[in-house]
Amino acid sequence: MFARIDHIGIAVESIDDALSLYDATYGMELVHREVVAEQGVEAVLLDVGENHVELLQPLGPETPVGKFLDRRGPGIHHVAYQVPDIEVALAALKAKNVRLIDETPRVGIRGSLVAFVHPKSSGGVLTEIVQPAEAH
Amino acid sequence: MFARIDHIGIAVESIDDALSLYDATYGMELVHREVVAEQGVEAVLLDVGENHVELLQPLGPETPVGKFLDRRGPGIHHVAYQVPDIEVALAALKAKNVRLIDETPRVGIRGSLVAFVHPKSSGGVLTEIVQPAEAH
Repeated sequence: MFARIDHIGIAVESIDDALSLYDATYGMELVHREVVAEQGVEAVLLDVGENHVELLQPLGPETPVGKFLDRRGPGIHHVAYQVPDIEVALAALKAKNVRLIDETPRVGIRGSLVAFVHPKSSGGVLTEIVQPAEAH
Repeated sequence: MFARIDHIGIAVESIDDALSLYDATYGMELVHREVVAEQGVEAVLLDVGENHVELLQPLGPETPVGKFLDRRGPGIHHVAYQVPDIEVALAALKAKNVRLIDETPRVGIRGSLVAFVHPKSSGGVLTEIVQPAEAH
């Protein structure tokens, strides 16, 4: 069902500070930067081969990522798996009685289509599925 | 420096229970199972394209993964990036003043060579680098 790990999402206090690690030290190429207001974050994508690291800086303390930082500090926030067709993937998950946060896809970063699985159905791991907008 | 995300390590109470999600529901192929006594875990690897999910069940409550589960519950424990030559990667990280848990590689799951970066140098994210034993 899943073609690869699309990205891991990492909650950070400051994208600019985190870039000194991920870009300057680890040498990952910064390929995209966007405010995703609906999710309450500013986000950047860095390439790691065909996978990505997504750094997430909350737009405020009352956002989901803001609350995550307050509760647990900086760290891995979610994992996203890439699928070729998100409608097919969602139908397959529903057929297996997986509980979904998003019953239908919504637009995510860089024009992708995304949906989140409910953590109660994914062993406590916040899990996203992603259909890229094109051949990213 | 990093070729791809090698795997995400997920701490679980029970590998067999978690496999009903990752194998039976998500359709990830189980490719390896091993007790890694030095790290205090039983671990399985599942394929996700060229990446992997590593499920980690602690061998006891006083192991690192046992303490993680006690403190935070099941969830993403670490991320591992794949490198073609771990000695070259470790030298490059040291040259950039990255603090390492493992100054020299040790043998990890499936005969790989692995080293951990100290979380103080990786923004709170437990980060591993992996040189696979062969073309996994």
